[in-house]
Amino acid sequence: MTQFQHRHLLGIEGLSPLDIQFLLDSAAAAVDVSRQAEKKKATLRGRTQINLFFEASTRTQSSFELAGKRLGADVMNMAVAQSSVKKGETLIDTAMTLNAMRPDLLVVRHHAAGAVALLAQKVECSVINAGDGAHEHPTQALLDALTIRRHKGKLAGLVVAICGDVRHSRVARSNILLLNAMGAQVRVVAPTTLLPSAIEELGVTVFTDMRKGLADADVVMMLRLQRERMAAAYVPSVREYFRFFGLDREKLSHAKPDAIVMHPGPMNRGVEIDPLIADGVQSVIREQVEMGVAVRMAVLEALGQHLSSTPVQN
Amino acid sequence: MTQFQHRHLLGIEGLSPLDIQFLLDSAAAAVDVSRQAEKKKATLRGRTQINLFFEASTRTQSSFELAGKRLGADVMNMAVAQSSVKKGETLIDTAMTLNAMRPDLLVVRHHAAGAVALLAQKVECSVINAGDGAHEHPTQALLDALTIRRHKGKLAGLVVAICGDVRHSRVARSNILLLNAMGAQVRVVAPTTLLPSAIEELGVTVFTDMRKGLADADVVMMLRLQRERMAAAYVPSVREYFRFFGLDREKLSHAKPDAIVMHPGPMNRGVEIDPLIADGVQSVIREQVEMGVAVRMAVLEALGQHLSSTPVQN
Amino acid sequence: MTQFQHRHLLGIEGLSPLDIQFLLDSAAAAVDVSRQAEKKKATLRGRTQINLFFEASTRTQSSFELAGKRLGADVMNMAVAQSSVKKGETLIDTAMTLNAMRPDLLVVRHHAAGAVALLAQKVECSVINAGDGAHEHPTQALLDALTIRRHKGKLAGLVVAICGDVRHSRVARSNILLLNAMGAQVRVVAPTTLLPSAIEELGVTVFTDMRKGLADADVVMMLRLQRERMAAAYVPSVREYFRFFGLDREKLSHAKPDAIVMHPGPMNRGVEIDPLIADGVQSVIREQVEMGVAVRMAVLEALGQHLSSTPVQN
Repeated sequence: MTQFQHRHLLGIEGLSPLDIQFLLDSAAAAVDVSRQAEKKKATLRGRTQINLFFEASTRTQSSFELAGKRLGADVMNMAVAQSSVKKGETLIDTAMTLNAMRPDLLVVRHHAAGAVALLAQKVECSVINAGDGAHEHPTQALLDALTIRRHKGKLAGLVVAICGDVRHSRVARSNILLLNAMGAQVRVVAPTTLLPSAIEELGVTVFTDMRKGLADADVVMMLRLQRERMAAAYVPSVREYFRFFGLDREKLSHAKPDAIVMHPGPMNRGVEIDPLIADGVQSVIREQVEMGVAVRMAVLEALGQHLSSTPVQN
Repeated sequence: MTQFQHRHLLGIEGLSPLDIQFLLDSAAAAVDVSRQAEKKKATLRGRTQINLFFEASTRTQSSFELAGKRLGADVMNMAVAQSSVKKGETLIDTAMTLNAMRPDLLVVRHHAAGAVALLAQKVECSVINAGDGAHEHPTQALLDALTIRRHKGKLAGLVVAICGDVRHSRVARSNILLLNAMGAQVRVVAPTTLLPSAIEELGVTVFTDMRKGLADADVVMMLRLQRERMAAAYVPSVREYFRFFGLDREKLSHAKPDAIVMHPGPMNRGVEIDPLIADGVQSVIREQVEMGVAVRMAVLEALGQHLSSTPVQN
Repeated sequence: MTQFQHRHLLGIEGLSPLDIQFLLDSAAAAVDVSRQAEKKKATLRGRTQINLFFEASTRTQSSFELAGKRLGADVMNMAVAQSSVKKGETLIDTAMTLNAMRPDLLVVRHHAAGAVALLAQKVECSVINAGDGAHEHPTQALLDALTIRRHKGKLAGLVVAICGDVRHSRVARSNILLLNAMGAQVRVVAPTTLLPSAIEELGVTVFTDMRKGLADADVVMMLRLQRERMAAAYVPSVREYFRFFGLDREKLSHAKPDAIVMHPGPMNRGVEIDPLIADGVQSVIREQVEMGVAVRMAVLEALGQHLSSTPVQN
């Protein structure tokens, strides 16, 4: 496992194309573990994995929990109410306290961009970013890439349209970084109000019209409309939004006939996606969930295997 | 384990007497596992069990969790706030998402009758109903039957009086189905306001007087008064209720001298049962809890053993 | 393991100096387990440990959870909302229900002094007090003692100053009992409003001036100011409190130059302790957390090893 030399996984930024390919190959192998009756490896036996979620996320936390348990780790979940961590010091105090319990792997979700990287500087274990504010969500980008690769056989050269609420999406940001690194052509399709400033600097082509943005796309990646993160005055009408940016049969017809449809979940059915498309033949949305467990197994394994005893300084 | 051919356990309805006997015999053997110092079998090693509770139930969830862990399964608890599953689609989305994580066994409690069966149609794993609305709670009926059999040596021919809030009770319904299937004589004793319509169609004799209903009974099964499920205007006075339907020494004296007293818990002491009876020599209420773990081990084992790798369609 | 003959650990009260020394020696050995890559022993394989917390405590519960898992036990967490256990009977009902599920070890935190001892009388498993009201918190006192012993090589003869909100602190009480039993000289330093009545009867010297109380101390043990437990009228001003009782560089200079600084956590930085001291070279606060896991492993092991099959009476 000398191919992966990082101590933490804080984002797609900082990973080389070789790193990404190593993790995807390793995840592809991990898919089979979960498909066996006895879905268990001993790779992380006796290792301690702590899931530290400052923001609730049933889906992501479950995926990491199953991944860790299937690798034989002892997994402990810690849900931290935001109220108890209002001060910056307390985040660090929490991290240092956990560190002293000597986990090997710390999976962290936090509502503030950069919080996970800050925490990683303070602890001796490996840290995995499970989503920090609007910054990064690297395992989501990896599972999306794995799903694409399984259907298209490659990433390089593909046309990928990321559609919807890009402004509030760490998923979009990590996906753009990964897909660009692997040679895909990334388009962003969104109303101007849901585009972050200077998005073009990430190396994407911007569209504000779904039909043009989806033209000849290999992959259509829809994002969840995060109304809960928007100032009240700017929340679009659901009906209007669906009319212009919701993925329906007609809009999808502009993509390649064998285009796949993706969504990170949980879906707002009838808002950003027509239920008929979500459950249709081009949808790979359930497969993304399955790849999520596989990718997290690969990441935990890659970080966990070169762990050794590293004394906490007294 | 070819004796048990069902993929799911959705209710007592649909089980043959042979199925029930098989599960009870298997549970009787499982009792000893939990009585050993090392209470561990490897039957479900590497299997994934998810406890998906849309309705909180510390007792039932704990019982399933210990049962799974003692069989060697990896157990993951998921508490789902009702607020996030208001729409029918979301129940299915949640189920499909979990299914994609490839659990082997899904233990589900839901507030709506029929929801668990609906969910079972959508997933590839085995589903166990841990209570759906006022419909069924099959493992409760099985643990009650096992407790009775341990004390009476049989089920056939026994007179069992189920007393109290039958209207709001899935426990009563599953027990009636099981006891009838096994040849017991089932009586229902309740005020008319707490009787479901057409209860006689289930094959029970109805009493509205406790002394008559308990006369010569072998088993007195009390139900929890579910005031939280009643429209405010219909909540009986606790004092009145206890006077007419609470089990006390005098009313119990009408049953057989060796009658056993049961309650599914948690008890409203002084409402449906006198504390002296709850803790008295005829009470088998604690033993019911112990049998609960054994029955759940038997069910998990029966469903889990003929699991094999069943690919989720992509 | 014949050295430790107790069935429960309800408090430091009742332990002999030999008991304490046995647990500290055993914990010292357990430190190494958590420092290995594979931090796993099989001592409690197949045993069931239930963490029953009537009062939330992320830190203590996590420490017990990791300790149990590293010893191979099956660990189940039960968070019990206080609302559901308002009546005395319900505490016992909860305990009896859990007992019937045949755990081997029950770790209990409760807001009422004496509740854990009451519960221990009702169950057949071993009970560990993880904090009961203002009464005792024995594993905290043990981890503090282990930390001191690692730095000072002994406990006997040391001057230990316990400072701050002694009135609301079970930590202070258990520490006083343990340190006295092991021959340390214990001082208590607090404003008179935060001293319990008759504190001198525990065999401590009382100071109301930090400089005098810290003079030549080997160990300075700060307590958390528990404002949430105080009647509103008596909550001291944070600024005033820090000025007179907060540990800063100047006050600490009165202790021995090699004095260690301790805090049970979570800290109110800037209230009872200056952040510079909390993170300074004399602080052993993080090490206390690490010793917490080791001490809990030792306690679980000591109680768990002479467990055998003890039938619940039917």
